[in-house]
Amino acid sequence: MGRPGTIARWPWRLLYSATMMHLPRPDDFHVHVRQGPALVHYVHDLATVFGRGLIMPNTLPPILNAVDVSRYRAEILAAAQVVNPHFEALMTFKITTLAALGGAVEEALADLKAAGAVAGKLYPAGVTTNSADGVKDLGELYPLFAAMEKRGLVLCLHGEDPDAFCLDRETAFLPKLGAVVAAFPRLKIVLEHVSTAQAVEWVLAQGPLVAATVTVQHLLFTLDDLLGGHLQPHLFCKPLIKRPEDRAALQAVVLSGSPRFFFGSDSAPHARAAKECDCGSAGCYSAPVALPALASFFEAAGELKGLADFVAGFGADFYGLPRLAGGLGGKISLVKESWKVPALLHAGPGLESGVVPLYAGQELAWKVKS
Amino acid sequence: MGRPGTIARWPWRLLYSATMMHLPRPDDFHVHVRQGPALVHYVHDLATVFGRGLIMPNTLPPILNAVDVSRYRAEILAAAQVVNPHFEALMTFKITTLAALGGAVEEALADLKAAGAVAGKLYPAGVTTNSADGVKDLGELYPLFAAMEKRGLVLCLHGEDPDAFCLDRETAFLPKLGAVVAAFPRLKIVLEHVSTAQAVEWVLAQGPLVAATVTVQHLLFTLDDLLGGHLQPHLFCKPLIKRPEDRAALQAVVLSGSPRFFFGSDSAPHARAAKECDCGSAGCYSAPVALPALASFFEAAGELKGLADFVAGFGADFYGLPRLAGGLGGKISLVKESWKVPALLHAGPGLESGVVPLYAGQELAWKVKS
Repeated sequence: MGRPGTIARWPWRLLYSATMMHLPRPDDFHVHVRQGPALVHYVHDLATVFGRGLIMPNTLPPILNAVDVSRYRAEILAAAQVVNPHFEALMTFKITTLAALGGAVEEALADLKAAGAVAGKLYPAGVTTNSADGVKDLGELYPLFAAMEKRGLVLCLHGEDPDAFCLDRETAFLPKLGAVVAAFPRLKIVLEHVSTAQAVEWVLAQGPLVAATVTVQHLLFTLDDLLGGHLQPHLFCKPLIKRPEDRAALQAVVLSGSPRFFFGSDSAPHARAAKECDCGSAGCYSAPVALPALASFFEAAGELKGLADFVAGFGADFYGLPRLAGGLGGKISLVKESWKVPALLHAGPGLESGVVPLYAGQELAWKVKS
Repeated sequence: MGRPGTIARWPWRLLYSATMMHLPRPDDFHVHVRQGPALVHYVHDLATVFGRGLIMPNTLPPILNAVDVSRYRAEILAAAQVVNPHFEALMTFKITTLAALGGAVEEALADLKAAGAVAGKLYPAGVTTNSADGVKDLGELYPLFAAMEKRGLVLCLHGEDPDAFCLDRETAFLPKLGAVVAAFPRLKIVLEHVSTAQAVEWVLAQGPLVAATVTVQHLLFTLDDLLGGHLQPHLFCKPLIKRPEDRAALQAVVLSGSPRFFFGSDSAPHARAAKECDCGSAGCYSAPVALPALASFFEAAGELKGLADFVAGFGADFYGLPRLAGGLGGKISLVKESWKVPALLHAGPGLESGVVPLYAGQELAWKVKS
């Protein structure tokens, strides 16, 4: 298994001109494709651009064991076939209780791994979409963490303490996570969708087996965008996007090329009717726009050379997977060609009100050509 | 003109039992009733409960001069006639530029006062609903402030600096307001809808001519209610509701009976379609629920005796108006009788999608009987 941070950067000269970039197929190390009739749309949007996706398990019903993982993985791969036959679904299982694994821990994990799971995802109870069955006491799960450590399964966490004030939840969770890190020094841990300067600092202070994913919305937006003018429900997600200082810390660490901060979109589609209502769901649908938005960010910072590592390098390294260097699914091109993001996607049978993507109706400067 | 804080409290023994309270008609020292076909609904909801309302001028078109004030006041009083013939519309004019007053400052103010204006309302440009024509440079308005000071007109401010991060805007505005206070020591100033611990502290540090209004939403809610679970657009307002520490500071100062903190609802109706959408308007429609909600708050704190001063005393004192002691419009009763707040109000011609009140669909323990 590769040690994060030890692999050289993508050879920059091969990848870039001012109007065109060739990138290896990127990875999305945190993505929701849901279940039911809309899944096919979400998988298409994902697999059109990305070569691999780490598939989140907080579906209804949840993905809890090897049987669930096998079935869900097959469904996703079938849907991806049309747009990208090489797409790889990196599966996760939802960590709730030891009992939910459906058997002895060691056996359950062996089966999960054989079914395609590379990570277990832990949601503290009540902290985000479909997390009512989440974890209340991390200590109860230590036997599971020990087994995951032994088998090289990654522990991914929605790192928020639901008992804290909404803007303080991530920071309040860090000591709890610190206890897990201390107890399982060889367990690979990913703090998902990192959102605060405090968490960036905390991750940087850990060893090479603790990493963080970074979303488009936490990297590029603040609460000013969500609440500073009119209310923008399509920017509402958990953890909340935060203050300018938090965004600045995220941008700095990503631009620094720290190999333990890599891309995971947390692309989380909800039907428009579930977002534009009196009780809106949390999640930004970024899969169709993430790569162009990131290209503009790296370009504006004069660091376009960092994009490939962020979206197609560091994550694979951390998970011990091969980088997708022109192999599976081929390269992907970004061209400097302004396009307008659709105001609404996929409206129709099974998803009547459609889904509103991030940047809906706005112009993006880079466009994906696969 | 009465000096704030010098008038005795309402005689408590007359007002209260565990299941019934008689209050003087309360005042709402900050309220929006809009223009157009829906105005009549909003005035009814207001005048059914309140004896006086300080009417905000950021309508479309705005209330800028004596002619506007006269016309708007007549429209409001006509609408109020049905439910409360004694209702008094305390008028404000919107402060934009000296030129917008439509003539010499002194004359314009004399006319405004004669037309029923008791205050001018200042919105920094871009800070809230219909504030694109707001003020960019307070210094340019010093001749107006001097004339208002001379004529005893109150300066009401939406105290936020639009250039600051959304959660810091009120605190960033305080030094600017401090300069006005220093320059015009005899000008009565109201920092509207105070929302932060910093602003509470700042107001407390000023003399008797600087006061603040407090809304239901800033007194009783935090960002956890707006964003901590699902997104609740009907709690979205400007200034934003803030942190628990901020709410605690507001609750403490209100319960302390400080006479310079009094009720102004900032009740600000928007059509449901303008709230539950992809770009939601700021404002909570609290007029129909404010008094019961406040009664429960004071009751829970064991300070029910403070309610009358907060809603029917300190504001009148500050503005130099008589308290409505059983005279105009008579007393009002609150009975301990649980009722469910309607999910939607006033849907119909002129307001097709209706308006969703604060506490929609929830139970309130106290009910107004007029």
